[in-house]
Amino acid sequence: MDTSREELIKLITKLVIEELSKEEVLIPIGVSNRHVHLRREDLDVLFGDGYELTKLRDLKQPGQYASNELVTIRGPKGEFKNVRILGPLRKETQVEISLSDGFVLGIKPPIKESGKLKDSAGIEIIGPKGRLIKHEGSIAALRHIHMTPETAKKLKINDKDLVDVEISGERKAILGNVLVRVSDKYALEMHVDLDEANACNLKNNDTVKIVKKG
Amino acid sequence: MDTSREELIKLITKLVIEELSKEEVLIPIGVSNRHVHLRREDLDVLFGDGYELTKLRDLKQPGQYASNELVTIRGPKGEFKNVRILGPLRKETQVEISLSDGFVLGIKPPIKESGKLKDSAGIEIIGPKGRLIKHEGSIAALRHIHMTPETAKKLKINDKDLVDVEISGERKAILGNVLVRVSDKYALEMHVDLDEANACNLKNNDTVKIVKKG
Repeated sequence: MDTSREELIKLITKLVIEELSKEEVLIPIGVSNRHVHLRREDLDVLFGDGYELTKLRDLKQPGQYASNELVTIRGPKGEFKNVRILGPLRKETQVEISLSDGFVLGIKPPIKESGKLKDSAGIEIIGPKGRLIKHEGSIAALRHIHMTPETAKKLKINDKDLVDVEISGERKAILGNVLVRVSDKYALEMHVDLDEANACNLKNNDTVKIVKKG
Repeated sequence: MDTSREELIKLITKLVIEELSKEEVLIPIGVSNRHVHLRREDLDVLFGDGYELTKLRDLKQPGQYASNELVTIRGPKGEFKNVRILGPLRKETQVEISLSDGFVLGIKPPIKESGKLKDSAGIEIIGPKGRLIKHEGSIAALRHIHMTPETAKKLKINDKDLVDVEISGERKAILGNVLVRVSDKYALEMHVDLDEANACNLKNNDTVKIVKKG
């Protein structure tokens, strides 16, 4: 047996043993429909000075909530009415849409991590008291997993790792380039958009598994 | 080294060598938007007795074409106007929509192979001369690859095999349960719907690879 083949076998065996001894964690899915995060001054423009968002329901991530407030988002080719604002307010306004939504609106949202708005797409936001023309702020959110440091340790994963995630069922798939975000403020959850959810026939609280670190 | 580990190593080595020696074929993507196939008598109802479809453009599959004729499809919750009819006529009327479209229409299309209409979803089709209430006929097409017997032989794949397909890029993924259809009447092409295309950031004529036989 020549050395390279022997080394290959050793490497593969090591990987297989690692794989077999890895701890498994089932990650619940959260499907994100299009939504808007607002900064203070933009809420003022859209809903009136000093307006406060009112809570419709808590989201799974601690402190985050769906508000009762809705806006219209508009691009050069189309618009969506009744797009929900998520609270609390943030430092920057961010409109999260799917690539499908982008075709309807006539804009090309880049696939970006939340908060990374450089070179993101422009969009118009219309509220009951005013409208905003944002020259950037619209993204297709990079699919990602929120987890606590405890879970990350168990899975031997670090904040900002990119992992592969296995989805079972009729439209089974392995999704790559899934960003992991670790914080003790998070609850374990994988966020996908509607394109990704429907392509894989996923619903809220279906569970998936990490199969490979990036 | 105990026997089971030795056997495991032999098996894995065999699989790796098979994998490394496999021939690669790049498969172009065809993205299918919602569309309708009609049987003769349904075309008569929608467009008038003896009406003939007129060709807008050829599709990649030999003999198949996009017609100039458009219909409205309607479910209990919504409708889509300007849905294209693909020709030629078929034995059974079939409406192919995405799971996203199903939510808009308020129907639940099962994920099915083309032509397998048992237990498919009901839908209304409206043409310029009449309307049809179909009690079945609407499906979300099972993602699939058309290939010639030549390509199938090269890839050691048979008609109706289910394979895994690797997609590269920003939204890289491996899609499972991809049906292979083999015929000398086909051109090499993988068909995905808009949910799948957007989830994987795929456009027409992007190329993908088969990575595993089912």
